[in-house]
Amino acid sequence: MKTISENKSFGGVQGVYSHAAPSTNCDMTFGLYLPPAANDGPVPVLWYLSGLTCTHENAMTKAGAQAWAAEHGIAVVFPDTSPRGDDVPDDDAYDLGKGAGFYVNATQAPWKDHFQMWDYITADLPALLAAEFPLDMDRQAITGHSMGGHGALTIAMAFPERFASVSAFAPIANPTASDWGKKQLTAYLGEPTDSESHWAKHDATLMMREKGFAGPVLIDQGADDQFLDLLKPESLSQAMAQARQDGIFRMQKGYDHSYFFVSTFMEDHIAFHADALWDA
Amino acid sequence: MKTISENKSFGGVQGVYSHAAPSTNCDMTFGLYLPPAANDGPVPVLWYLSGLTCTHENAMTKAGAQAWAAEHGIAVVFPDTSPRGDDVPDDDAYDLGKGAGFYVNATQAPWKDHFQMWDYITADLPALLAAEFPLDMDRQAITGHSMGGHGALTIAMAFPERFASVSAFAPIANPTASDWGKKQLTAYLGEPTDSESHWAKHDATLMMREKGFAGPVLIDQGADDQFLDLLKPESLSQAMAQARQDGIFRMQKGYDHSYFFVSTFMEDHIAFHADALWDA
Repeated sequence: MKTISENKSFGGVQGVYSHAAPSTNCDMTFGLYLPPAANDGPVPVLWYLSGLTCTHENAMTKAGAQAWAAEHGIAVVFPDTSPRGDDVPDDDAYDLGKGAGFYVNATQAPWKDHFQMWDYITADLPALLAAEFPLDMDRQAITGHSMGGHGALTIAMAFPERFASVSAFAPIANPTASDWGKKQLTAYLGEPTDSESHWAKHDATLMMREKGFAGPVLIDQGADDQFLDLLKPESLSQAMAQARQDGIFRMQKGYDHSYFFVSTFMEDHIAFHADALWDA
Repeated sequence: MKTISENKSFGGVQGVYSHAAPSTNCDMTFGLYLPPAANDGPVPVLWYLSGLTCTHENAMTKAGAQAWAAEHGIAVVFPDTSPRGDDVPDDDAYDLGKGAGFYVNATQAPWKDHFQMWDYITADLPALLAAEFPLDMDRQAITGHSMGGHGALTIAMAFPERFASVSAFAPIANPTASDWGKKQLTAYLGEPTDSESHWAKHDATLMMREKGFAGPVLIDQGADDQFLDLLKPESLSQAMAQARQDGIFRMQKGYDHSYFFVSTFMEDHIAFHADALWDA
């Protein structure tokens, strides 16, 4: 692991690090915020998965998470959204290839050699974090924005024993029924010709209907989001209610899809996760 | 005036606008955050002047000011740092020309036709803000980072009747004695051959020695700032103490020059200005 930068922030340290990741078969960069409490021993960790076109950096500089993470004594990890480097295939569209890993393990050419973001987020990076930093890996929670909200919800429901809580800001909520989803799932996983099962585990609405989540769920969605048709929040809201999911779905009047929306509600999300993490 | 964008943020609106500015003789872009309280009537306004290489956007997205501005019912204006456009001269160096207006009125070629940032910040933009937005222009305060801290301090001391309070994050504190200053003041204002007076009004340390500021002053400086030799905080600290200036100078252990430093102490600065503005 290589240290790219470390900046003091709210009494803790906002670091950026890189490492060779076995799953994605390339060097990966991530941000990690360690709160002041990490000086006294291992702290819980909140995963923040970012959206389309983002790197590790966007949320780290724009989401305003550090203030609240410091207050609650929680680390926040900011992974990248795809494999990177000259050897990694890409697409001219902003929503496929680099910056658009969609948190799946690709099975299709040309993507399968590097686009293994599911394994990167659930295996490689947790192992590195546990080895290198003062983190209490028995206390983890996960959140994300847009494509990252999709990743957070689907990963949390697949690993209910790992995450005490899950939240999302404007998640891509029903990708198997959206142009933010069908295109990418087809490219990375192949057509759903035989069965939809290899798509279904990557759809938060379908997973919510199927099994739900063991802990509490918090969803914030801007009512003036310019991508409502692609996000399909109503599908997830309905599925949560039908599943009697322990959770809160909030439609926020006037807010759009930007980091101005995310940062506005970051305090609530970190407080929500802190409650679950300190109970865990 | 043209609206570039408006995003809801912490219950208020983060806007970006452009307008033709007489002083700089070009179109200028600025950000303005209006807190929720602006729905009920005019609110006080805090100026945030940015540093070298910045546009109106950096602090707007990275400084975390909106949360506290909303809480205290204060607007925050984020001006650009120089004139812009194809007609505006530039320099290959990052610290001269575009992004480096230094908050002076240039008298030298090729800069003088556009680089009138002092007048832009103190005349053009206040007039536009007063005409277009629900702002109480009798309640103004000013802050800034690095070159913007220099601008905030020198402008506040030149207009003590206008600003209730002034603060700065890692200001360029003594530019007439620094390579961040001598180069730019020479280029924009000419050599100080006859008299230093046309330089002195653009040096916070000299102005503090000469006249000080009528209201309270708050300075934060990171002890691990990578530019300490260029910023010269000790000169300003000494001048403040010698002048018996009502003020606080804080050396913050471990912090550097980045927005991670600025955002960490933004809450304190906005609370400091709120106290002064609501007393004004």
